[in-house]
Parts: sequence; structure tokens; C-alpha cells
Amino acid sequence: MGLDTDIQKIPKYLLSAADPALAFNRKIIDATAKYAVAYKPNLAFYESLGWQGWHTLEKTVEYIKSKYPEIFLIADAKRGDIGNTSNLYARTFFEKLDFDAITVAPYMGEDSVKPFMAYPEKWVILLALTSNKGAADFQYLKDENTGEELFKSVLKTSQSWGTPENLMYVVGATKAEKLKEIRKIVPDNFLLVPGVGAQGGSLEEVAKNGLNSKCGLLVNSSRGIIYSSSEKNFGEKAAEAAQHVHEKMKNILESKGLI
Amino acid sequence: MGLDTDIQKIPKYLLSAADPALAFNRKIIDATAKYAVAYKPNLAFYESLGWQGWHTLEKTVEYIKSKYPEIFLIADAKRGDIGNTSNLYARTFFEKLDFDAITVAPYMGEDSVKPFMAYPEKWVILLALTSNKGAADFQYLKDENTGEELFKSVLKTSQSWGTPENLMYVVGATKAEKLKEIRKIVPDNFLLVPGVGAQGGSLEEVAKNGLNSKCGLLVNSSRGIIYSSSEKNFGEKAAEAAQHVHEKMKNILESKGLI
Repeated sequence: MGLDTDIQKIPKYLLSAADPALAFNRKIIDATAKYAVAYKPNLAFYESLGWQGWHTLEKTVEYIKSKYPEIFLIADAKRGDIGNTSNLYARTFFEKLDFDAITVAPYMGEDSVKPFMAYPEKWVILLALTSNKGAADFQYLKDENTGEELFKSVLKTSQSWGTPENLMYVVGATKAEKLKEIRKIVPDNFLLVPGVGAQGGSLEEVAKNGLNSKCGLLVNSSRGIIYSSSEKNFGEKAAEAAQHVHEKMKNILESKGLI
Repeated sequence: MGLDTDIQKIPKYLLSAADPALAFNRKIIDATAKYAVAYKPNLAFYESLGWQGWHTLEKTVEYIKSKYPEIFLIADAKRGDIGNTSNLYARTFFEKLDFDAITVAPYMGEDSVKPFMAYPEKWVILLALTSNKGAADFQYLKDENTGEELFKSVLKTSQSWGTPENLMYVVGATKAEKLKEIRKIVPDNFLLVPGVGAQGGSLEEVAKNGLNSKCGLLVNSSRGIIYSSSEKNFGEKAAEAAQHVHEKMKNILESKGLI
């Protein structure tokens, strides 16, 4: 579940709270925790509120980690820089904040990614094939030596940087037809799949092409759940939306004999 | 000048200040402002201090903008995400904070970059060929249709997204031999060149291959200037180091008849 908390979209009555975004997050989290395997705050939403937004992010992380320690926590931050800078980002998200995973951009290569893997029990989620239109600009360019698209080079090259125990990939739900090819390259890694719901991806298609023998999918929904209502009942309505996705996924996993 | 302010590297006596990183930045800025055309805080260093670090960043930006409004201000943030998220990042760095420019990663393509160009008088600095070892992992992959490396595809494709008035590129000083080829593709765009100094790049080589008729180069030095001394004289020593780079650049520009 994406915690893309936009102060302009949350119920108006919360705006009188000391920290409106935190008040929203707490209610959403309490309402949906029994249906969520992971929460994924998107950093852009918190940074847009300046240092106060970073403070909200820190308090949100603390809230989840203290009350729901079993829920996986992903920083959707898309960081990535030269080694000594990525070291600092890793320290920020894995020590200063207690995230379990962070999304990382691959353009700068191995030394921009590996510092995040130096932390035991923590995960890198590397961008491979993204859900947006601009994915076509570079991710599909074919390497003249291998004939393979850039996103496949990213998958293959990065396999030696980590293991299925510390490396996942972002694959957009809007690219479900490519999931089958991706599964062949990375049979064991978990895939974080955004784009179901608001961006138009289909859960059934994603499951059909992306499941492996251990499930292997983290399917994200953000706006489709957290903004289900702009009234005082927004928690209940978010819970209903989360339950709906949860049950769809449960049915799929049962039909495949995975649970 | 990179403001990569690391609390573990600043003079020890500053640690008793209310905001040590800010105290360091103010002194560095006052000492070097007459030699700097731009300041470039690296976000990782501020984020590593949590929300307090973001507050320090905001106060640093305010300090520069109020006292030295003529100095160009770059957020070295390497952001980039789907359109509605990049919109928020643009709002953060150009409205909430008053940066003039931000570094952006190209992997997610046009809709991840263009939101930053919606702001008049603001600049995108797109990663093209970076200074680190990992640059070789993907940036040199050759497209099977054009035979050109990925970083050249980034340069060419992105030319239609902006103009030399709102789009620059990051080209590492450690890749000076490639600068000549890059200059042919983007003759008019400014290039931000990190990697002179601590990373081993040569200013002379960069100038020889990268200058255009309007200069067209923003050459960055961070660690080589700001950590010139760990004593109370760190401001003076940073000024000397900045003056040294400034005069080398001035001599180069004079010898080319550019100033």
C-alpha cells in the first residue's frame, strides 16, 4: 500500500490537526494493517512539505515499526548516486529511518546500488521496467551486442550484485505482457509492481505472468485505496478498498495452490 | 562548489553550535562567495541528519538567496519518478525551496523530467555520463539501431524536451576524453562537471574538450574546497582553495578569449 499522502487530497477536517498528514496516515494504517503486507511511503509527498514533511515521514515510520513491526516498509525514494553518496542515502533510510527497503535508480550502475546492500536484512528494489509512458524513451533501447532491451540488461547485470534475499525489481503493472519475459530472467526475485488501479494495470494479468512458486509479487496500490473517501469515514472506506485487493490476491494465490 | 556537508568531517569546535552544519555552511559560503558562480548542496548529506538536516538545508538555501542572490543554486538530488510524483519534486525544490536547478536521473524518460521544466527560469541538470566507475555498467551500452551509447541517446532524445536555457547535463570530469563527442551533440547546453579534485578529474582536460563559445561549463569541486582545514581557519583555507580553482578557470577562459 502506497502512502502517497497529499495534503491537498486528505479529508478537510484533518487540516486542523497538529500534523494533518500524520493524522491521516495513522488512521489509514490502523484501518488497513490487517490487509497490508507492506507500506510504501513515496518520499516526494513528504518532501513537498519541507522539513515538517520529513518529520511526518519519520513519525509515520516510527508508528508503523512500533505498532505493526511485522509489516514490511518500503521507502519509495528512487535514490542512486556515486558510492560515497549512496552510502549516506543507505545510512539515512536504513539506520536513521528504519525502512526495510528502498527503491533505487540503476542509471549510475553498481557502485551506486551496492552500498544499500551492505545492510543485512535490508533490500534494494531496483527500477527495471517502470509503469510510465517515458519508460519507452530508454528502457526499451536494445543493446547491439545482446539484442536485449536496457531493462533486461539491468536485470541481468544486477543479478551478480545481490541475491533474491536482498534484491527486488520494480516492474510496472502496465507492462504485464513483459512480465513473463522478466520472470524468465529473474525467476526467484520479488517484483514490486506499481500501477494497478489508478494507472490502469490489471491484477489478474500481473498475477498470471509474474507469480513464481513463492508468490514473488508485491503488488502496490496507492491512490486507489487511500483516497476512497474524503469524509470522516475515510478509514473504513480505505479498509474496504484494501480488503477488496487483498481478497482478489488471496483468491488468485489459492487458485494457484500457493496458500 | 559542492556543499557536501558531513557532520563527521567539519571542525570539531562547531559541534557545540545549535546547528553545526548550518554554522559550517554559513562560514564556508561567506568565505567563498566571491569565487563561486554556483553552490550545489548534495541532498544525501542533509537527509542523513533526518528532518533536522532538511531544516538545515532550507536555512542554507535562505541564507544564500538572501545574502548572495546572484549565485546560482543547484539541488544535487538526482530525483526522477512518474509524472505526478516528479511534479511534486519540482514543487519542492523550485517553490518550497528556491533552488535554481536540480539534478535529475533519466532512466524513467520524458514524463519524469519535463515537470521540472514547467518552471520559468529554472533548470534541469540531466545525468548523461557520470563520474563513477558504475557509469560503465549501462551508460556505455550501444543501441543496436544507432550504434550509439546510452548516454548519447539520453543527450539526443532529451534535446527535444528542453532548450539550452533550461536544460544542462551532468558529465563527469573523469570522462574528459568523451567531452569532445558530447560537445558535438549538445553544442549549446551548459555541462555540470563533477569529479575535478577528489575524484581525479583534470580541469585543463575538461576545459580543452568541453568549453563552448559562451564557456558552457559549470565545474564542480566539493571535498577539495570545503574540507581544506579542520581547524578554526577552515573558512580562510576554503577561500584559498576556491580562489585557486577560480584563478585556474579564469586563466583558461582568458587564454581562450572568453573573458
